[in-house]
Amino acid sequence: MELWYSEMHTEDVKFSIRIKEQLLADKSQFQQIDVFESNEFGRFFTLDGLIMVTEKDEFIYHDMIVHVPMATNPNIKNVLVIGAGDGGTVRELSRYKSIEKIDVVEIDKLVVDVCLEYFPNTSVGFKDPRVELFYEDGLKFVRNKGSKYDLIIVDSTDPFGPGEGLFTKEFYGNCYKALTEDGILVNQHESPYYSSYAKSMQRAHKRINEFFPIARVYQAHIPTYPSGHWLFGFASKKYDPLEFDSKKWNELGLKTRYYNTNLHTACFALPNYVIDFLEESKND
Amino acid sequence: MELWYSEMHTEDVKFSIRIKEQLLADKSQFQQIDVFESNEFGRFFTLDGLIMVTEKDEFIYHDMIVHVPMATNPNIKNVLVIGAGDGGTVRELSRYKSIEKIDVVEIDKLVVDVCLEYFPNTSVGFKDPRVELFYEDGLKFVRNKGSKYDLIIVDSTDPFGPGEGLFTKEFYGNCYKALTEDGILVNQHESPYYSSYAKSMQRAHKRINEFFPIARVYQAHIPTYPSGHWLFGFASKKYDPLEFDSKKWNELGLKTRYYNTNLHTACFALPNYVIDFLEESKND
Repeated sequence: MELWYSEMHTEDVKFSIRIKEQLLADKSQFQQIDVFESNEFGRFFTLDGLIMVTEKDEFIYHDMIVHVPMATNPNIKNVLVIGAGDGGTVRELSRYKSIEKIDVVEIDKLVVDVCLEYFPNTSVGFKDPRVELFYEDGLKFVRNKGSKYDLIIVDSTDPFGPGEGLFTKEFYGNCYKALTEDGILVNQHESPYYSSYAKSMQRAHKRINEFFPIARVYQAHIPTYPSGHWLFGFASKKYDPLEFDSKKWNELGLKTRYYNTNLHTACFALPNYVIDFLEESKND
Repeated sequence: MELWYSEMHTEDVKFSIRIKEQLLADKSQFQQIDVFESNEFGRFFTLDGLIMVTEKDEFIYHDMIVHVPMATNPNIKNVLVIGAGDGGTVRELSRYKSIEKIDVVEIDKLVVDVCLEYFPNTSVGFKDPRVELFYEDGLKFVRNKGSKYDLIIVDSTDPFGPGEGLFTKEFYGNCYKALTEDGILVNQHESPYYSSYAKSMQRAHKRINEFFPIARVYQAHIPTYPSGHWLFGFASKKYDPLEFDSKKWNELGLKTRYYNTNLHTACFALPNYVIDFLEESKND
């Protein structure tokens, strides 16, 4: 038998993975979730037909969305994570003893339940006693929170379907208000390479840039996401990620398979065509 | 009609591109060459069923294989390019007025002929009067050349088929001898992500490391190559690419769509798992 999972990266580009077995097909009120077992990527799951997490390379995404802000400000105590029902982001956060509270807002309880059953290596994060899970809409949750969080991580799906509200001006404005004066906002920022993703990236950057004095973009190699060239947004009221204390982070002794403090600075050095896209977005 | 070009990135991973038209299917004594027209990537060609050059993203590969060594030593005068029948590497080299001579050794004349006809934007490089083309085996060409070249760029196919010899110890040793005492060797270094490519990367690094006092690896996002995470090897007798004069390169006023002098340093900052692979290779 040949069984292939295929994902359209654009109308004209298809990425396919040979499947050993489909383990689950389920549907919540928000989205379709499917779990597969494969040789190359191990187990992985998709939401509405888009790969979210694979056992092989989830460490790249989770390293980069967590350790970049945590190394920038080692005094982060209160964290809000929006999305992230797989638990990988929380797993990385929970390695920091200095963090006191991690609120996780996931709109879809089914994602958490499925990950608890099928992805113990990521969902282990939810077992940390500092974690509180809210099954709510992140857009609503973040309204009128006061300045409560030192870090907000938006670990969302793409800006269509349930993740759509997490790319709006209203949302970024409320995140700004929910952050302390030391506050940092990190979000997954789509890809610069295929035009529909690049437009999402430009829109997100333009909106974040309107609220935050510091708004940078950094990159990582994530082979199972469209084009493999993935971006993150780093927005901040005070801390510049390029001026950080690498020694302090290295003294924590955290083992990571992707992130390191050389890469911390280097990942903010973008190719010219990406810089041009981001500049263009400001003139829209 | 639906027409799809598919490439196996591993036995279990397939990358497919919707094709408007196949423009050419031909075969030399060395390999099969096919030319396609697509919406997403424009025109592209494959050798033995592997994508070599697409109009959409060839600038990434050619920027990174040329401008990194040229910015490291702006006094490079004599260059040898091995492979590179498409002309893109030569096109970027020919933008430097300081270069006096560019020898290009391509084993397969058909590649050059096809690119002259179908890829005017890359093959334009061959029209520079400083370029001399040799249709020979690069492995043989580089034997007993004396110390003649300031830079050798190995713009090869993968280490199977006609490109195989360009990943051997004998070849790297002869490159070392063919370089002046200022000499730099840059080669395409495969990908760290899928295991068969990672093994090629490790072998190449181990062998280069045995000859050159400075042997570093740098990375780029090339979405049409397997995993999109592509590496280059930088080996050198004297010049460390991390100690370069960015001002001097920027004063040249060359417009580039990927390379810039921030990225020059940043691209040498590798993820931990890649560093570990490279370290392992030395202990083999």
